[in-house]
Amino acid sequence: MNALDDLIDSFSRLPGVGKKSASRIAHYLLKTDKSLCDQLARDISVLHERIKPCRICGAYTEDDLCEVCSDPRRDRHTICIVEQPQDVQTIEAVHEFNGLFHVLGGVIAPLDGMGPEQLNLSGLLARISAESVTEVILATNPTVEGDTTALYIQRILKNSNVSVTRLASGLPVGGDLEYADRLTLARSFRGRTSL
Amino acid sequence: MNALDDLIDSFSRLPGVGKKSASRIAHYLLKTDKSLCDQLARDISVLHERIKPCRICGAYTEDDLCEVCSDPRRDRHTICIVEQPQDVQTIEAVHEFNGLFHVLGGVIAPLDGMGPEQLNLSGLLARISAESVTEVILATNPTVEGDTTALYIQRILKNSNVSVTRLASGLPVGGDLEYADRLTLARSFRGRTSL
Repeated sequence: MNALDDLIDSFSRLPGVGKKSASRIAHYLLKTDKSLCDQLARDISVLHERIKPCRICGAYTEDDLCEVCSDPRRDRHTICIVEQPQDVQTIEAVHEFNGLFHVLGGVIAPLDGMGPEQLNLSGLLARISAESVTEVILATNPTVEGDTTALYIQRILKNSNVSVTRLASGLPVGGDLEYADRLTLARSFRGRTSL
Repeated sequence: MNALDDLIDSFSRLPGVGKKSASRIAHYLLKTDKSLCDQLARDISVLHERIKPCRICGAYTEDDLCEVCSDPRRDRHTICIVEQPQDVQTIEAVHEFNGLFHVLGGVIAPLDGMGPEQLNLSGLLARISAESVTEVILATNPTVEGDTTALYIQRILKNSNVSVTRLASGLPVGGDLEYADRLTLARSFRGRTSL
């Protein structure tokens, strides 16, 4: 094992990077300017020190509060609940939502040992009672676990004064009925809207 | 731009890694144990210092001579000529060839400004005259540039006493005639062998 094999080995442990891609990347780094290597190594090594969860919502940030929580122009009456910190970036990229976020840090999945107590729910309840939240949008993934988690949160918020909504589930734009799976097609019927 | 965006940006400059994969890898590194980050950053930063071309053949090595050149059990009468250092590893992984290698460091490609003088050909001629080489196998890629380079080398070795061969080109094993391109199919006819 030399330094090149070590690097290929490390790269192939990353998600979506197989042995061949890892080898290709390593050889590219060896052929390219050393400055890209230095930059990449520096970026990786400071990652854990610099990025931490936002004190309020749990999204990734370099500061005490994330960009959304510290932005006075955001609508503070609406909270969008997501599973993971990266979901915040995905939704932000669409520029459709102007409220605040709350990151659960996972979903209820008993087989993986994840129960409601592992999720950041106490923080959510504290925010709802402290701030004047009027709507909670459940943006967990449309999977069994995501749906279960959404139902669970809907139930514990039942007696509070906030309206609880869920992201629409149905046919993706540009999709084809022929290639839609049965569950998605069934949902698109149940959630049909009047024109 | 925070540390996470910086890392995603650096990752997406690697070959075969798009913006989405880069984001996925960065978030994985942030969620996973810090030790993987440290390992990866260390592996990347020492790469250029530790790996250099073998003094004789040009393959990557940590020492003065690569594993192949310094191995007394290799057949020193046969030299396999490849384009890039990584081709050595690709061929070594097959365990079919027991001779030595010679890395050209590229191919003749006038449009990219690569002429014969940019290739490591003087080293090759010196090796052939100094050592008792009997066969040179041209293992450049079966592309226009690779074929041109192979022809060029065949010509400059014409008056030496070594036999010059070229890797067979034809249908890949497990392939289907139906999906073979015309050039490959034509070559498989021209290079047909008797059974």
